[in-house]
Amino acid sequence: MNQITLHPIGVIHSHYKDSKDIPIQGRFKDDVEAWVELKDEYVKGLKDLDGFSHAILLYYFHKSDKEHIEGKPFLEEDKHGIFAIRSPHRPNHIGLSVVKIRHIRNNKLYFTQVDMIDGTPLLDIKPYVKYFDSREHVVSGWLDKHFKNGKIPDKTISRNPQV
Amino acid sequence: MNQITLHPIGVIHSHYKDSKDIPIQGRFKDDVEAWVELKDEYVKGLKDLDGFSHAILLYYFHKSDKEHIEGKPFLEEDKHGIFAIRSPHRPNHIGLSVVKIRHIRNNKLYFTQVDMIDGTPLLDIKPYVKYFDSREHVVSGWLDKHFKNGKIPDKTISRNPQV
Repeated sequence: MNQITLHPIGVIHSHYKDSKDIPIQGRFKDDVEAWVELKDEYVKGLKDLDGFSHAILLYYFHKSDKEHIEGKPFLEEDKHGIFAIRSPHRPNHIGLSVVKIRHIRNNKLYFTQVDMIDGTPLLDIKPYVKYFDSREHVVSGWLDKHFKNGKIPDKTISRNPQV
Repeated sequence: MNQITLHPIGVIHSHYKDSKDIPIQGRFKDDVEAWVELKDEYVKGLKDLDGFSHAILLYYFHKSDKEHIEGKPFLEEDKHGIFAIRSPHRPNHIGLSVVKIRHIRNNKLYFTQVDMIDGTPLLDIKPYVKYFDSREHVVSGWLDKHFKNGKIPDKTISRNPQV
């Protein structure tokens, strides 16, 4: 299998029009709401998703036309492999965010914990299942030193275009 | 953007040769090891991933040629929307698993908590970051009743072809 063709199932509408305004992770900015607008043919697929508090959105980093194998994350000066950071400039350009579901109405899913730019093509929605997706005793590599003692680094509030 | 073209970055080798042998989530069967074989051009991207305990693998459900908008999960008889279950028969056929990293050597990443079939095309590896990907106060919809009081349902041990 050399090539896989995907089709967006919808689009993400957000107040972030420019990549430099986006928090590097939406979890740290909980008061901003965005929404998914799903193509009509997929609306029935939302049935019972409103019973979940969180969802995983998979989307396409459509603003990136670069593919870097190593990169410097916003939080530090050291370079890491692309698979050890969450940069958009990655092979296949797939983005992943855990978001908090607010409400679902017809073909629209409203959520908070937003870190996508307006117009982002949506590839999938999965229910966030704590039994599958939450982990204990997690070691988070080069990131742990930035979050010591429960501290949230200021730099997580807005995103540098490189991250 | 109507169409997106992806290229696998490697392949997942696992002992599961048939979809009916696979646990519905690898987390519940921790003694089985599998490995990612990355294409040579991506090996440098693994730098510093060994500092993380867990990774998120995104892969292509290459055995599914169906796209269902609603489906019946293995754990119950009721139908739910495809975005409220983790079935492979979903739009764009992207799979997601949180796995436990064992070790990394050259172009191979060895891991446990396996729920992929042998030969699965790999699309991306992301570091699992507890500050971004773990959540508290999670409500998991129709699944919660099956995991009451910390119980793990027997049916999570092996997978029915439909899930």
